[in-house]
Amino acid sequence: MKPKISIITLGVEDLERATRFYGEGLGLPKYDFEGGNISFFSLEGTWLALYPREELAKDIGLAVSSQGGFSGITLAHNVASKSEVDAVLSQAVSSGARLIKPAKDVFWGGYSGYFQDPEVHYWEVAYNPYQDLT
Amino acid sequence: MKPKISIITLGVEDLERATRFYGEGLGLPKYDFEGGNISFFSLEGTWLALYPREELAKDIGLAVSSQGGFSGITLAHNVASKSEVDAVLSQAVSSGARLIKPAKDVFWGGYSGYFQDPEVHYWEVAYNPYQDLT
Repeated sequence: MKPKISIITLGVEDLERATRFYGEGLGLPKYDFEGGNISFFSLEGTWLALYPREELAKDIGLAVSSQGGFSGITLAHNVASKSEVDAVLSQAVSSGARLIKPAKDVFWGGYSGYFQDPEVHYWEVAYNPYQDLT
Repeated sequence: MKPKISIITLGVEDLERATRFYGEGLGLPKYDFEGGNISFFSLEGTWLALYPREELAKDIGLAVSSQGGFSGITLAHNVASKSEVDAVLSQAVSSGARLIKPAKDVFWGGYSGYFQDPEVHYWEVAYNPYQDLT
């Protein structure tokens, strides 16, 4: 298979709130799509989709489970400087995210912090001086 | 923020098994990294990382929770034809994945199926005739 993840779909409890958070809040480019109950953001490389958690579970064929616990997945957004880490975390928090771990110098030589989006998915915002993934 | 997810990190119970699955199994290009307890795959656009679930939780500052339930996140891999969907699902299953939903024509006009990787993360393999994200 081609080494690419095409879409990351986040199951959400409140599609309008989540769409506002990523669209108006974080400023991601919403993909114009007249198809109903799903939002797409046309990111570079891997797209982001938001879809009701129950629908997502149903689409796979799973029993709908309650939310809770740690999903075991995080998304990382890398930037080019420490000050940009702080800026993105601030932007996220003022858009409705919860600051989980304030940014600081971390053991691997970078600088990073975590926020939790309104749907309790974890995002790391990171400056990595060794590897440019921005 | 730039519209890009840089890395998706999957928390795993067995790092060696997971690394084998994505590297040797699915054939993703492993990024040569001498840093210990983490695996990176240099995908197009968004990279994939595998990191022990407990370490990942600790890195965020969470209590380690038991696995279980549906994480609320899926990853999608799009291909250019129905036969490629079948081929990738077969490749995944023969690499240790569980087939969750065999591929079939789906309501939105595409063709897709789901597998669960050895760490119980859900991947959709899809052919979308309307939007090329391959």
